[in-house]
Amino acid sequence: MNERDALRLLAADLPHAGDDCAVVDGLVLTIDMLHASTDFPEGTTAYTVGWRSVGVSLSDVAAMGAEPIGAVAAYAPTALEEEPLTAFVEGARDVCERVGTDYVGGDLDTHRELTVTTTAVGRADDPVPRSGASPGEVVCVTGEWGRTAAALELFDAGDIERANDLFRFDPRIEAGRALAPEATAMMDSSDGLARSLHQLAEASGCGFRVDADALPVHSELEELFDDPEVLFERAVHVGEDFELVCTLPKSALAAAREDCPVPLTLVGRVTDPGEGVTVVGGPDDSTGRPLPDRGYTHE
Amino acid sequence: MNERDALRLLAADLPHAGDDCAVVDGLVLTIDMLHASTDFPEGTTAYTVGWRSVGVSLSDVAAMGAEPIGAVAAYAPTALEEEPLTAFVEGARDVCERVGTDYVGGDLDTHRELTVTTTAVGRADDPVPRSGASPGEVVCVTGEWGRTAAALELFDAGDIERANDLFRFDPRIEAGRALAPEATAMMDSSDGLARSLHQLAEASGCGFRVDADALPVHSELEELFDDPEVLFERAVHVGEDFELVCTLPKSALAAAREDCPVPLTLVGRVTDPGEGVTVVGGPDDSTGRPLPDRGYTHE
Repeated sequence: MNERDALRLLAADLPHAGDDCAVVDGLVLTIDMLHASTDFPEGTTAYTVGWRSVGVSLSDVAAMGAEPIGAVAAYAPTALEEEPLTAFVEGARDVCERVGTDYVGGDLDTHRELTVTTTAVGRADDPVPRSGASPGEVVCVTGEWGRTAAALELFDAGDIERANDLFRFDPRIEAGRALAPEATAMMDSSDGLARSLHQLAEASGCGFRVDADALPVHSELEELFDDPEVLFERAVHVGEDFELVCTLPKSALAAAREDCPVPLTLVGRVTDPGEGVTVVGGPDDSTGRPLPDRGYTHE
Repeated sequence: MNERDALRLLAADLPHAGDDCAVVDGLVLTIDMLHASTDFPEGTTAYTVGWRSVGVSLSDVAAMGAEPIGAVAAYAPTALEEEPLTAFVEGARDVCERVGTDYVGGDLDTHRELTVTTTAVGRADDPVPRSGASPGEVVCVTGEWGRTAAALELFDAGDIERANDLFRFDPRIEAGRALAPEATAMMDSSDGLARSLHQLAEASGCGFRVDADALPVHSELEELFDDPEVLFERAVHVGEDFELVCTLPKSALAAAREDCPVPLTLVGRVTDPGEGVTVVGGPDDSTGRPLPDRGYTHE
């Protein structure tokens, strides 16, 4: 059983189980577990671990269009030591401060492998689900794609400082709040653009047609790779960039672009469900081929 | 560096960091990480894991005198399988239902060792801290003590069903809410009575004198052990019973007893800080000896 099947099983009768956060009593609530072997390459500093872990939960709050109230973390290194613990908390605080909220505490443990679980809580009168996209609407993304793919490459290459810098992303809280009034469906790109679109398609009962050439690729990734196929693969399938993907009525696009504090790029259209998720353009200059539902998954 | 020193380091400038929950914007928020090697003996069922894990976070909400709004969990077994996942969620839901709140979802992962992190959120206009105890007040506890110590013994002895039953405790939400208006300090007994009293003493700047003979010992523990020293050790130092320990003005005791939906037992007095935490009675019929600050700790 893979993670997606398991999540589908869980979603059967939990309200909002398919969304980035649970919704209860005007609040959005999320929990995310990360650990060394799958999430923190060798060289990730404790400061970056704190920033990125808490950032992941804040990104879920952003994806609901909610305002964060606070975040907590359970931090379990292999041994408790003062310096990394202090650095972890600094990172956790700094990412909260970056989006105008507070890191309010947590739990400590030790584990055979560095493990961090984070929770963020937010408030939203009208949280944006994944299920509201309709054929004819436009699909937009925030920011640039491939930042984490570039970071992973740099960790491998030993350029640890630059890799850490890239790993500390800005959760798109302000963008999420700006887009919420117009967005019909929204999620963050935890699993890459391809899987995000498939998840939105499943939740909304629609298809998507995206133009690969429209996707803004992160400048660091472009510096690292020349091959268009490699660039496409890394930007579309690697994921964990924690940008937002949303659908909007075409008539709302101009206002959304103006309100959104980071670049908002139109990358495609919502189509009928029968059309599936397809891509035009890209390395092979495709005129329309299926975009496989493939990304990062825990097998 | 042990867990307590690490927590102290963290508490230095986090508001409410010493309490069972963080407090932010009228909400209480807690996160707890549990894993197989320290928290779930062999034989613990997935249903019990779900119940107990979420119960631990609900117990923190109870300790603040708050009303729970909802709970989430990140569940990471060594491999994702349908049956234990379903049982985990059932346990998580049932403990929420037991205290009138909702299990609203979570995250899935796989880990080298079963690891579960839970979060609960609650609402409290006036959350009860650990820091409000004053000399002259009384110290009370809910329920019976040694339930988890009995369960651990039964797991060891292979009486798995009874052990699982004992492991599924009722979070003291209703008791916490009933005690909140009068309690000057409150916490749950995650780390046992001895360490709980030391933590309250440190937070409140007071001492305690408890009467070991007043402590209600769980009937299952009494069935398992005859030796008074063993009974005392297990009831006072093992912890993880998730009962409440609180201080009250003596004048409020009668009303508190009446309001509290579970037995509330007076076990001692708040004393001056110079007196430390002492115990009278018990197996050696002590007339007043220091109660060591010893319990379960991650070294």
